[in-house]
Amino acid sequence: MTPDWIAADWGTTNLRVWAMSQSGSVLAAAKSDDGMGKLSKDGFEPALLALVDGWISETTTVIACGMVGSRQGWTEAPYATVPCAATPDRFAAAPTTHANLSVNIIPGLRQNSPADVMRGEETQIAGFLALNPKWDGVICLPGTHTKWAHVSAGEVVSFQTSMTGDLFAAISEHTVLKHSIGSGWDEEGFAQGLDDVISKPEKLAARLFSLRAEGLLHGLANETARARLSGLLIGAELAATKPYWLGQQVAVVGASTLSKRYVDALATQGVHATQADGDRATLAGLTAAYRRFREL
Amino acid sequence: MTPDWIAADWGTTNLRVWAMSQSGSVLAAAKSDDGMGKLSKDGFEPALLALVDGWISETTTVIACGMVGSRQGWTEAPYATVPCAATPDRFAAAPTTHANLSVNIIPGLRQNSPADVMRGEETQIAGFLALNPKWDGVICLPGTHTKWAHVSAGEVVSFQTSMTGDLFAAISEHTVLKHSIGSGWDEEGFAQGLDDVISKPEKLAARLFSLRAEGLLHGLANETARARLSGLLIGAELAATKPYWLGQQVAVVGASTLSKRYVDALATQGVHATQADGDRATLAGLTAAYRRFREL
Repeated sequence: MTPDWIAADWGTTNLRVWAMSQSGSVLAAAKSDDGMGKLSKDGFEPALLALVDGWISETTTVIACGMVGSRQGWTEAPYATVPCAATPDRFAAAPTTHANLSVNIIPGLRQNSPADVMRGEETQIAGFLALNPKWDGVICLPGTHTKWAHVSAGEVVSFQTSMTGDLFAAISEHTVLKHSIGSGWDEEGFAQGLDDVISKPEKLAARLFSLRAEGLLHGLANETARARLSGLLIGAELAATKPYWLGQQVAVVGASTLSKRYVDALATQGVHATQADGDRATLAGLTAAYRRFREL
Repeated sequence: MTPDWIAADWGTTNLRVWAMSQSGSVLAAAKSDDGMGKLSKDGFEPALLALVDGWISETTTVIACGMVGSRQGWTEAPYATVPCAATPDRFAAAPTTHANLSVNIIPGLRQNSPADVMRGEETQIAGFLALNPKWDGVICLPGTHTKWAHVSAGEVVSFQTSMTGDLFAAISEHTVLKHSIGSGWDEEGFAQGLDDVISKPEKLAARLFSLRAEGLLHGLANETARARLSGLLIGAELAATKPYWLGQQVAVVGASTLSKRYVDALATQGVHATQADGDRATLAGLTAAYRRFREL
């Protein structure tokens, strides 16, 4: 099996690669936990070859997105500044020792004011637009750092990041709430947390310790506490991003369970968002970038 | 040196003891890091004796407050329910093997709705009231879990907890902001964070990641990011506790640097709070409890 090119999604914690045909179909896929976060500068090429060595014959182009292009990554791919096209118009070539390997990294996006950055999500945005040509509106990409991007005429106009996933992990693992947050889920708890904060965001700081106190005094179940914490934090995020989603066409692009929560949360505010698969968007974005790369 | 009794402030992470005279003066003091969090049930008595063994002659009364009275503590001292007097009217006797040791633990306070609990702060409140008889108003006790208590006629009427210190530690050590938060302080950064959130609490979720992005794009200094994060979180807390402090007489009781931040933050809202020393309040509260214990 010899692919025409290789797509790579290389984040902080994981590396995923796909052997691609010219037409954009997937011939093979592989992944590892060799994320940017654990690699030194000279660790990137071996980490990539560990997955793709068998796919390389003649010179093979790799198109990569994500934190691999950060200052701590393989090579820095300087940010493009919004407003700009979602599909990149330049790439950063990574230094390689393998004779037949050409690695090209997609730049992230920056916004000067309010200051914000993304790396990887721009490729999902480009992919969503490739799959939905002429789509205008707001794209929400839930994750550790959820991005909200205003997209118009193929360009990212502006964006805003909420650290909701990062906060959820830190609060549920590294504060007193670690004693109260269990596994499992409770839809009603999620809805209650959301409702508590979305209309009255000033309640957030008062509601968090309640999860502990209600457990101690009234036996609040750990799965309810988990769902309510998620509702409180997504509620605070929706309060902060209201100028993005209010009265807009919204698409939520990401992993299905988490995306569904955002779609449900938006629905309580009268916004009927489209849900789209994050992996499919990533691959479509890498494919759009590869086509662009061939034109340059 | 033979004290008349022994005062103990026994929290999750530390144990502090004082050899006391009948009149309430301190004859000696000692401390260790044998907090409740690292002790098993049979570890409490040895941890106490390690500090006070030399102070015991005939039967000696120890009055203790804090997490030592929690379910995971030496023995559980069931909560008193607010509204109730700040000075306890019952104590939980801890099981001891030492013949001359009588250990009596002050109960924490509970509020059924909204659910809330405290252990240790009730003693500081009682101490503040012992030092300031007939004082009515709102007492703020800043810390890992900041308590706001409405106090009237010697009773705690209601209270509310914000996890501000716990959140600050979790966010600055266990999220992406760990790369952005340094040591040091910047008054202007604190004021800006506070101002950003106190009037518009819905901005909180949008402001957190900005600390990272402004560092990457505009070189925001790590000490400014630290102070601004503190301002954002204390701002969110003040937004949540507005029904407590608005138009009230307020006292901030705690460690001086942290208390000063709350006093400064309240001043921006036109509230001129009194600042009082937390350790002095703890000792006065333990002394008031000892006197009560002798009357029972």
